[in-house]
Amino acid sequence: MSYPDALPGDAKRGKGLTVWFTGLSSAGKTTISRSVYETLRSRGHRVEWLDGDVVRRRLSKGLGFSKEDRDENTRRIGFVAELLTRNGVIVLVSAISPYRAVRDEMRAAIGNFLEVYVNAPLEVCQQRDVNGVYLRARTGQIHQVTGIDDPYELPLAPEVVCATDRETPPQSAAKVLGALDNFQNSLNYAADCSRSLLDVAS
Amino acid sequence: MSYPDALPGDAKRGKGLTVWFTGLSSAGKTTISRSVYETLRSRGHRVEWLDGDVVRRRLSKGLGFSKEDRDENTRRIGFVAELLTRNGVIVLVSAISPYRAVRDEMRAAIGNFLEVYVNAPLEVCQQRDVNGVYLRARTGQIHQVTGIDDPYELPLAPEVVCATDRETPPQSAAKVLGALDNFQNSLNYAADCSRSLLDVAS
Repeated sequence: MSYPDALPGDAKRGKGLTVWFTGLSSAGKTTISRSVYETLRSRGHRVEWLDGDVVRRRLSKGLGFSKEDRDENTRRIGFVAELLTRNGVIVLVSAISPYRAVRDEMRAAIGNFLEVYVNAPLEVCQQRDVNGVYLRARTGQIHQVTGIDDPYELPLAPEVVCATDRETPPQSAAKVLGALDNFQNSLNYAADCSRSLLDVAS
Repeated sequence: MSYPDALPGDAKRGKGLTVWFTGLSSAGKTTISRSVYETLRSRGHRVEWLDGDVVRRRLSKGLGFSKEDRDENTRRIGFVAELLTRNGVIVLVSAISPYRAVRDEMRAAIGNFLEVYVNAPLEVCQQRDVNGVYLRARTGQIHQVTGIDDPYELPLAPEVVCATDRETPPQSAAKVLGALDNFQNSLNYAADCSRSLLDVAS
């Protein structure tokens, strides 16, 4: 069953949820969340994507990488995700968000919440090094890099685990979309897919 | 005509907008926006209220009251308002937001935007002094108080002006709700036109 079509009328706009991608830098959070984002958009959903780098620029300029600042950054993302979620939006968050307690705090605050642990061994992440943080850490240019000299507290009970060293990005995205479908169905939810536009398109 | 009832089905949830209340401390922003918020909620709208004090706590901890920090605070509010607005939410912002250029920047970014200038003479605001800032400014405990030793750039073309020294809070709220009705009706008219175009296309 394709959930955008599963429910009539207003219920389609009813419940939002937040899908929170956590994991090391270069684990694949951005790649998978972009794919999920594009799929949901193409299905006509209301969806917003809060990527860690964008949020750092738009909401958290001036915050650093201490535990306190990272937690504050996570809470700001969570505040925005909560506002959107309770207004029926599917929110994708991709951010390292290394500390378990504040992730769990966001889960409790937001309610409709799926945690996706994007998991690749540190060595694989270092080989990918998409934005060069591991190189800069090795050469001493930066400190407080998660997994190197800053902790990452892995999720204890994530709804989805994407082992990106052993599955392709489409496989990972499909797992997330499947979990999202199940979650939405269990909420008796279907999203903001404009029936009339589908009719016009068909 | 009461617009929540004027439109069939989905259109009620279609377009969001931001109503931005600007003005001095104790001018009446919070009082009016609370009243508008409660009315819209009781009509069944999706509505969020971003109050300056709440935003300072949730998004802008650590920012001060320099022009740079005030503008950054305003931009963060605007970022969140934009995300909500484009997902069909009516967003009420009540924040001093003293600088014209950044308010206009938010108007341009958000699109569906009503500026409400909550205007009372400084002397009246000082008499009210709801949160004690004017007293603390007089006794030298704080500085950078808007209207005292920090500028307030009044809006040049606000959609609504509430002269709160000469009208009651219900009168001010009614003006805002009337402007909101008119704005929504014009949006819905545009939406109807585009629906007709879709019908023609099908």
